Amino acid sequence: MRILIENVDILQEDRVISNQNILIEEDKIIEISDKKDFENIDYKIDGKNKIAMPGLVNTHTHLAMTLFRGYADDLTLKEWLEEKIWPQEAKLQADDVYWGSLLGLCEMIKSGTIAFADMYFFMDEVARAVSESGIKASLSVGMISIAGDEDEILNRGVEFARSWHNKENGRIKVMLAPHAPYTCRPSFLEKVINKAVELNIGIHTHLSETALEVENIKNIYGLTPVRLMNRIGLFNVPVLAAHCVFVDDEEIEILSEKGVGVAHNPQSNLKLASGIAPVKRMLEKKVKVGLGTDGPASNNNLDMWEEIRLVAILHKGYERDPVAVPAKDAITMATKNGMEILGWRDSGVIKEGYRADLILVDINKPHFYPRHNFLSHLVYSAGAFDVDTVIVDGRILMEKRELKTLDEEKIMYEAEKRAFDLIKKS
Amino acid sequence: MRILIENVDILQEDRVISNQNILIEEDKIIEISDKKDFENIDYKIDGKNKIAMPGLVNTHTHLAMTLFRGYADDLTLKEWLEEKIWPQEAKLQADDVYWGSLLGLCEMIKSGTIAFADMYFFMDEVARAVSESGIKASLSVGMISIAGDEDEILNRGVEFARSWHNKENGRIKVMLAPHAPYTCRPSFLEKVINKAVELNIGIHTHLSETALEVENIKNIYGLTPVRLMNRIGLFNVPVLAAHCVFVDDEEIEILSEKGVGVAHNPQSNLKLASGIAPVKRMLEKKVKVGLGTDGPASNNNLDMWEEIRLVAILHKGYERDPVAVPAKDAITMATKNGMEILGWRDSGVIKEGYRADLILVDINKPHFYPRHNFLSHLVYSAGAFDVDTVIVDGRILMEKRELKTLDEEKIMYEAEKRAFDLIKKS
Repeated sequence: MRILIENVDILQEDRVISNQNILIEEDKIIEISDKKDFENIDYKIDGKNKIAMPGLVNTHTHLAMTLFRGYADDLTLKEWLEEKIWPQEAKLQADDVYWGSLLGLCEMIKSGTIAFADMYFFMDEVARAVSESGIKASLSVGMISIAGDEDEILNRGVEFARSWHNKENGRIKVMLAPHAPYTCRPSFLEKVINKAVELNIGIHTHLSETALEVENIKNIYGLTPVRLMNRIGLFNVPVLAAHCVFVDDEEIEILSEKGVGVAHNPQSNLKLASGIAPVKRMLEKKVKVGLGTDGPASNNNLDMWEEIRLVAILHKGYERDPVAVPAKDAITMATKNGMEILGWRDSGVIKEGYRADLILVDINKPHFYPRHNFLSHLVYSAGAFDVDTVIVDGRILMEKRELKTLDEEKIMYEAEKRAFDLIKKS
Repeated sequence: MRILIENVDILQEDRVISNQNILIEEDKIIEISDKKDFENIDYKIDGKNKIAMPGLVNTHTHLAMTLFRGYADDLTLKEWLEEKIWPQEAKLQADDVYWGSLLGLCEMIKSGTIAFADMYFFMDEVARAVSESGIKASLSVGMISIAGDEDEILNRGVEFARSWHNKENGRIKVMLAPHAPYTCRPSFLEKVINKAVELNIGIHTHLSETALEVENIKNIYGLTPVRLMNRIGLFNVPVLAAHCVFVDDEEIEILSEKGVGVAHNPQSNLKLASGIAPVKRMLEKKVKVGLGTDGPASNNNLDMWEEIRLVAILHKGYERDPVAVPAKDAITMATKNGMEILGWRDSGVIKEGYRADLILVDINKPHFYPRHNFLSHLVYSAGAFDVDTVIVDGRILMEKRELKTLDEEKIMYEAEKRAFDLIKKS
């Protein structure tokens, strides 16, 4: 299969090159040029009035929590978790997670997200949904060691990892996911690290999300979460650490030195009243920062454009520094950095020889005019609805905003039915 | 003209009533009911899978700055203003402001904004564009008294106010707009107040936007900006004060007691690195707070949904209080409060006898599922692109996302041409 995207503007790093053609063969970009005479093209896409850019990467979510979108908002964290979310999650069945994941996948593709990292339960169902959708994912079973038999819990995570690693021609990757320092004992974490080394995979965890977590961990272990994880040896394997809202300068140095990938979730951190992560300092210290939405119950959507805009403006205002997190950095976090953190080294930029993982953004709209600077427009003015076409591994998942792999109407209906039934169940 | 919106869900305060019909006659909502037999209907709108809600009100912008969207970002405030924005604004001609305003109006209608407050130059052109568009506006000439002859400057503002007040059957209102405490002398402000009393209109001004402003005003006058304005008597007329980022508890009391309308511009305040306004305390003290985008060069769009979401999440995270600014308050700020602050008492809610000023939001999309709570979805999950239909004073300005009063393609072309020519001019 050879696809040609004609007459398109391409975002490459911080500049846009105009009037190019992108030739895709199978799952790769094989040529980018302004020449006219391409041969043996199976399918053409008109790129006029569109920008081609790398697809977005959501480095931290709990996809099936779409089921709880809007179910419980404007509550204290204690009420939200203990009275609302946990009792519902306890009732979840495989089927619920499958349909909830599909709903999230519809939303992701429609907003230009082409890869994500997920940590949840019934992960075989999530993997099945991801297989059908055509997008990339790094999946992991959330493991809470204090909730039961440690070996059984670890085995479940390992078994999932063994069955799904590099499936779908490498479109699905896996990690091990000890939930957090306050739900997993150090002895358990050491076992997880050993398994990750054995399987040659990374670890996805929550880290330093709230001030209370930091206080509790310090009280128990005499160390802050990042220091504790460092002492245990967690950072000796590739780590995706979600949040890192409360990290001091020395901890930022540790994250940087150890090459930890940080999933920054600005909307979730604000909505759950956790706080504001020191992203400006992280970037200064060259920490590898990606962006995430977190679960849709604490966001409440999977729209990465909102995270891109927010990361670019929030830290300017919070740090009183108008040049903090410029547009270029925000886009890099949401594309190249995300792919790197999830383990795809041949994606995240539009370049010959790289994977055909890209989106087309429709720029023929009032909020893209005047066309002074597309990079600025993409960060400070664009939205999810501007995404016209989504291509992953050379396969068209959406064209002219119509989903090609998923039945949107059916999924909305089935997911909602299960969400309502779940809440009715006692 | 009688318009019937059939089978629609209606957002009223914080609840949604299902399956209603809204009957509009001329510029008013004359009946809301679930009965079936309406007669003499000129035009029907299918409200299935849609929510009717009050249109959004942008309480502070400089519309024609669309021309500078994306022209200068990620710069210090000094570079941005002195090297980029001011030199360009100095070259603006009437025609530029007209087309720039039209571009902004397209964007506003397409995102569900039905009324706004503007302070800029060449305001006759803005008023002309507003007339054509069909939306509501409270317009004012920005007056910088230190820039020239005070009487001449005041006269220009007064002349504009006299010519346009209550034009278009009351769809256009006016204010006097002394730019800010640091650009207008107290003696000038006193003249403005007298004129506002004489004309029976309000005053639109910038107030306490940056820490530097507060410091400078204190150094010159020995008082903070809000206290200075209070001593001068500004708050004895209806005032729309944009920003109020730096106000202490006593100043918040003053704003509350005097009934000052505050335009909170969370995105602009973040992007320009001004800071974060104490909105939680303002709401506790019953200050009348509306939302605004500020000019598109410091935002960079006119999308009020972003401001709604941001006001609801930003203060939760900043104050570490997950119940700060609940969804209901965010929507009220963007609708009812905005209309009150701009002087429309018969708009801002969907109610019999009120103006037919409403929008229909398309909720048949993945990010609105499951439909647990529409109020939550509208605040935490919706976006500009979900607005399907816009009605102002009973006139349809957009239906199925197609603009009815403005020629979008032509406006994008003409506005961009002028923006590019302007920047080329030496």
